[in-house]
Amino acid sequence: MDAPSPALFVDLYELTMAQAYWHSGRTGEATFSLFIRSHPRNRAYWVCAGLQDVLRRVGEFRPTRDDLEALRGLGGFDPGFLDYLKGLRFTGSLRAMPEGSIFFANEPALEVTAPIIEAQLLETYLINCLNLQTVMATKASRVVHAAGGRTVVDFAARRAHGTEAADRLARASYAVGYSGTSNVAAGIRHGIPTFGTMAHSFVTCFESEAEAFRAYAASFPDTSVFLVDTYDTLGGVRAAVTVAREMREAGRALRAIRLDSGDLAGLSAAARGLLDDAGLHEVDIFASGGLDEFGVESIVRAGAPVDGFGVGTRVGVSADSPWSECVYKLVEYDGSPVLKLSAGKASLPGRKQVYRLRDEDGRCVRDTVALADEPCSGAGEPLLEEVARDGVVTVPSPPLSAIRARFSREFASLPSPHKALLSPTQYDVRVSGRLEALRSRAARKAANT
Amino acid sequence: MDAPSPALFVDLYELTMAQAYWHSGRTGEATFSLFIRSHPRNRAYWVCAGLQDVLRRVGEFRPTRDDLEALRGLGGFDPGFLDYLKGLRFTGSLRAMPEGSIFFANEPALEVTAPIIEAQLLETYLINCLNLQTVMATKASRVVHAAGGRTVVDFAARRAHGTEAADRLARASYAVGYSGTSNVAAGIRHGIPTFGTMAHSFVTCFESEAEAFRAYAASFPDTSVFLVDTYDTLGGVRAAVTVAREMREAGRALRAIRLDSGDLAGLSAAARGLLDDAGLHEVDIFASGGLDEFGVESIVRAGAPVDGFGVGTRVGVSADSPWSECVYKLVEYDGSPVLKLSAGKASLPGRKQVYRLRDEDGRCVRDTVALADEPCSGAGEPLLEEVARDGVVTVPSPPLSAIRARFSREFASLPSPHKALLSPTQYDVRVSGRLEALRSRAARKAANT
Repeated sequence: MDAPSPALFVDLYELTMAQAYWHSGRTGEATFSLFIRSHPRNRAYWVCAGLQDVLRRVGEFRPTRDDLEALRGLGGFDPGFLDYLKGLRFTGSLRAMPEGSIFFANEPALEVTAPIIEAQLLETYLINCLNLQTVMATKASRVVHAAGGRTVVDFAARRAHGTEAADRLARASYAVGYSGTSNVAAGIRHGIPTFGTMAHSFVTCFESEAEAFRAYAASFPDTSVFLVDTYDTLGGVRAAVTVAREMREAGRALRAIRLDSGDLAGLSAAARGLLDDAGLHEVDIFASGGLDEFGVESIVRAGAPVDGFGVGTRVGVSADSPWSECVYKLVEYDGSPVLKLSAGKASLPGRKQVYRLRDEDGRCVRDTVALADEPCSGAGEPLLEEVARDGVVTVPSPPLSAIRARFSREFASLPSPHKALLSPTQYDVRVSGRLEALRSRAARKAANT
Repeated sequence: MDAPSPALFVDLYELTMAQAYWHSGRTGEATFSLFIRSHPRNRAYWVCAGLQDVLRRVGEFRPTRDDLEALRGLGGFDPGFLDYLKGLRFTGSLRAMPEGSIFFANEPALEVTAPIIEAQLLETYLINCLNLQTVMATKASRVVHAAGGRTVVDFAARRAHGTEAADRLARASYAVGYSGTSNVAAGIRHGIPTFGTMAHSFVTCFESEAEAFRAYAASFPDTSVFLVDTYDTLGGVRAAVTVAREMREAGRALRAIRLDSGDLAGLSAAARGLLDDAGLHEVDIFASGGLDEFGVESIVRAGAPVDGFGVGTRVGVSADSPWSECVYKLVEYDGSPVLKLSAGKASLPGRKQVYRLRDEDGRCVRDTVALADEPCSGAGEPLLEEVARDGVVTVPSPPLSAIRARFSREFASLPSPHKALLSPTQYDVRVSGRLEALRSRAARKAANT
């Protein structure tokens, strides 16, 4: 069977509900809010990422003829409904926080207003896309914070959950301040600097470490990074020193050595000593191997002479928290606010806006979640912006450099206690008086249905 | 910039090493072993998955003209080397365990023998592909085991790490015994049954739960599953009972109700009571909401009347263990065994075979990792099979149904203590005498380099 088009990346219930809406003539305008219900342990903020893909998807919404044939094959769908799907395109509006924004639990990062079937059919993709990229950007931002200005490079292509996840991870981590990625495809696709050293296999393929280093230096006389821990780390450093001196005599320079196992802080200090004793002060030390924000912080705190970090698996799968409670909830239908009351999963009704109040130095003080049409003078700047109207994207996708600049600015304005790697202070997010009143009324009404 | 081709899904070091090999004329035949270094907490086996994609990739190995242009743009590559890459295709051989096999830490699941540059350039994709699908299949197999024959459906499309991960997850979980997936695209692509119920948004869109249920039943008179926890679960069950009776009077039948929050075991018992009191014995109860193998096991152990489970996020990201220590190590170059000795990461040299010994009832007793050319009579059946030779795939990809049957057979033959959800007993994996002797010799030699 041919691969289905992106339009079929839906949970089946979106299509069955759509048919039931279509049969019952319930096709009015709906607003859905996308938000994250909570912060996991050791998190007090989220970094918004993924909107570019969302806006691309809005234009790819239409099922193909093959898709419709495949749906017919599933059984259960009314031929009239499938005809209706054939002509379907997204005609609604989106309001969203820009990529690189910082947001908090229970704040809508995106709202979709559209005929209910169109809005419902976006659910799975929107959550999938924004959950992945937001989780990755948030995790990576913690590493950048821990590295305190040192170079950080994404090494996770091999352990990310698929090639798509690896691609989005490289982009999201560059957006929050990484220096680049080892992932060539992602580097080219997004214009991100690529970094590469050598693998242990390269070293083991030669008769000795020094021979392996010489062969690599012959090919990359000014950009070599030697991996020194294949057999015995300090022995590897000595071999690197030997070859680095030969390179210097030839008018070239070794860029760095890489440590990839063992006590990285201790080994880096010993390696620095050997390099400096040989007058190789300009050779940097790069560390990798099972690192995450906690490993990076501990090396930095120890004052270890590590100039850059390669971070892989634990960050690339956000190992301590590999998902968010990202949801997409109906908040208004046909002009009326709606909500659910399920245990532990209650939602806030109505179209919303999020306001951020800052102090005179620009630092974030608190956010207020309010109704979209509520006057909120004094609550700060509104964060949700219109990005699509009548099915057409209304803002150009910013370049990755602009997203990176936005994140850097926003992160700097978030007070430190919210950025702590362990047990950060939760940020003050309030619900406006009118929204709270609406929630009470809607909950009473719903409880009486 | 156009999207790079799959051939560029490599870590940059694979290309830089390739150039260094090319410059130094070190282009002999190499064998790389792909294996997983360890079992994480609460795991004692892995389920092999992803080979179909690997074999597809072997045929897609060739970089495009745009790829080469993009590499030229990165700088640092010799034009002669880029010309060499232009003509490159994979000419080597692969030996692998079939998908659906069970394997253990430090056993090669795949070995690649090819000119070293070709073998090296596959590294990132092979690890990415087999790591993802093996982690997913293994996690899902635990849920199937916990469910003890009850229906399990994949609900994780929205929280998997991207649309590709969601697709592979649906396939891997069906391979290990799920009944199907909610992911329409994956269901169509792989021929997996699709399941769908309704969302809370559907219920909240109507004036009452009963009205929502009636609208859905009108569209799906024989396949409806009503979601009952939008406001108050037992109130929702009563509304479902009302509508189910109306359906019965019209000669139709409600298929099931779904519980999605709260105390699922307790609520299922109460719901079963309400359904049975109304004579609706044929209506099943389906449970979902934050479930993983532990949640499923606890519901099953409580004897709760749950007929099927929808499992999402925690399984879809393998939350307790979202990666494996899957690596790809050079074990032989130009006829000589090689290994690395890095702290905590030492590898076994030489081309290998894995033998599985079974008792007279077919149950697995122990595995032996041996050299590929070592006589191993009495060690059991060999597990690695040739799947590609001289760059050509030599075995047809089995249909998913055959992979599912293989897994079912293999899993049944694995003794229960290795399948325990908590602290399983580790399986007996031995290293053959000749391999151990080779390791010692190679380690002594490497330590003296």
